[in-house]
Amino acid sequence: MGASLAKAVKQKGLFGQVRTWSRRKETREKCVGQDWCDEVLETAEEAVTGAEFVVLCPPVQVIPSLLEQLADHFAKGAIVTDVGSTKENICEAAQKVLQEGVEFLGSHPMAGSEKTGLEHAKADLFEGMACILTPTESNTAETITKVDQFWQAVGMRTGRTSPEEHDRIVAAVSHLPHVLASVLSENLLHKPEGWNNYAGNGLRDTTRIAAGDPGLWRQIIADNVGPIEEMLEDFQTSLSNFQEALKKRDFEKIEKILVDGKVHRDSLP
Amino acid sequence: MGASLAKAVKQKGLFGQVRTWSRRKETREKCVGQDWCDEVLETAEEAVTGAEFVVLCPPVQVIPSLLEQLADHFAKGAIVTDVGSTKENICEAAQKVLQEGVEFLGSHPMAGSEKTGLEHAKADLFEGMACILTPTESNTAETITKVDQFWQAVGMRTGRTSPEEHDRIVAAVSHLPHVLASVLSENLLHKPEGWNNYAGNGLRDTTRIAAGDPGLWRQIIADNVGPIEEMLEDFQTSLSNFQEALKKRDFEKIEKILVDGKVHRDSLP
Repeated sequence: MGASLAKAVKQKGLFGQVRTWSRRKETREKCVGQDWCDEVLETAEEAVTGAEFVVLCPPVQVIPSLLEQLADHFAKGAIVTDVGSTKENICEAAQKVLQEGVEFLGSHPMAGSEKTGLEHAKADLFEGMACILTPTESNTAETITKVDQFWQAVGMRTGRTSPEEHDRIVAAVSHLPHVLASVLSENLLHKPEGWNNYAGNGLRDTTRIAAGDPGLWRQIIADNVGPIEEMLEDFQTSLSNFQEALKKRDFEKIEKILVDGKVHRDSLP
Repeated sequence: MGASLAKAVKQKGLFGQVRTWSRRKETREKCVGQDWCDEVLETAEEAVTGAEFVVLCPPVQVIPSLLEQLADHFAKGAIVTDVGSTKENICEAAQKVLQEGVEFLGSHPMAGSEKTGLEHAKADLFEGMACILTPTESNTAETITKVDQFWQAVGMRTGRTSPEEHDRIVAAVSHLPHVLASVLSENLLHKPEGWNNYAGNGLRDTTRIAAGDPGLWRQIIADNVGPIEEMLEDFQTSLSNFQEALKKRDFEKIEKILVDGKVHRDSLP
C-alpha cells in the first residue's frame, strides 16, 4: 500500500517531497528512480528525520514496535499516521512512546487488493473507498483536519470513530466475512474430490477473500481477537436461528432471514 | 433460464424446431416473433405434444407437479429433462408419474445470474459452466448420452452422480455458501447504522449472492432440507474449531485453517 500511496501523493502534488523507506533492501532498490519517489532512505530513522507528515505502512503487528523505534527521530511538530487495519493496540502504543510535540492519529484506509507488492501499486487504489480516522483525546482539531484532508485528497470517503469502536466495526464488516470465507473454504477442502467441479460463481465470490495471504490475516486476527470473538458469537446466534427454523421446517422464518439479508446486501455502498 | 436455453439451442442448430411455453401470458406474448423461438404454445400440454426432447425450466418446486400434469401428453419415445437445482424429489416424482416409453433424466445446469427474466436471456449463459446429470437405474445408456451431448452442445462441462449425491454436492458447494452469505448479511443488518459505510469489497463479494431472490431460495432450501442440515452441521464443526483456536490464542492453528482455506479456494475451477 505504501507505493500506491506515494504514487497518489505525487500525482495530486500534496507535498513538496516524497521520501520512502522499506524494510526490504530489494524493495528499496526498486524504489530508486521511480518518478513518484524523490528520495529512498536506507533506514527508517533517516526517512522520518525532518518529515512533517509520516505514514507508516508496514504489516499491522509491526506498527507498535516501529513507533517505539522511531519515537526519538520524529521531527517536533510532525504528524504521524498509519494504515493498520486495527487501531486500539496501535493508538495505545503511540500514546505510550511518542514524545511531546509529535502527534499520532490512527488511520485505516480500507483499500487494497489481493495483489501486493510494488509492481501492483496504483495511484487510484484509494478512489471512492472508505477511510476510518480514530482520533483520541490527545489529538488537536487541527491535526484531525489535516489527516482527514490528506485521505480525502487521495480520493477517500473519511469517517471518525474511537479506536475501540473502529476495531469492533472492522471485526464485523471485514474480519468476520474473512473468517467465514476461510472457514467455509477449509470446510469444503475435506469434501470428496470432484465436488469442486460443480462450484459455481456463488461459491467463487463467497470465498474470494479466502485466497488472501494467510500470514497477513493471522496477524490481523491476532491483533483483534476480542472484537472478532464478539462478532463470531453474534454470528453463531444468527446461524443457530436459521438452523432452528430449518429443523422446524419454518420456511416463513427462513424467507424472512433471506429477505433481511437481501435488504442489508442491497444497502451496501 | 428457458429463454437463454432456447437461444443457445437455436444458435447451435440442435433441433429442427424450438417450441416454448411459459406459465405467464405476458412472457408468452414476449416470446412471439423472437428469432430463437419457432412456436409459442398456449398450454404446457400443447407444447410437449409430439416433442422428442423436452426441457422443463420452471421454479424447482413446480417441476414434480408439472411432470404429473404432463404425464399423459409426452410423446412415446420422448426424452424429458429439467434444470431444477435439486434432484432427488424430482427424479422420484418422474419415476412415479411418467408413462412407459417416456424417459426422464434429471439435469442441473449450474448457470444463471441474479438477473432473471426474458430481457436478460443470453445464449452464452452456459458456456464453460458445470452441468450435473443424475441418471437412475431406469435410464438407458442412449438417453444418458443424448442428454449429455445436449448440454455439452450448449457449452457446458458435464458430470454424473446419483440424484442423492447431487443434492449433497449442491448443498455443500451452492446452498451452504448461499445460507452463509444470507445469514451474514442478516446478522449485519442489526449492527449500528453507519457501520455499512466501512464495508469494503471483501464484504461485497462474500455477500453478493445474498441479493438473490428470497422466494426462489426459500424454494430451493425447502426442497433440499436434509442435505443442507448435514452441511450446516459440518460447517458448524469447522467454525467451532476456529473459535476454539481463537479462545486459546492458538495462532498456529488459525494460520493452518487460513492456509487450508486458501488451498481450497485456489483449487476452484
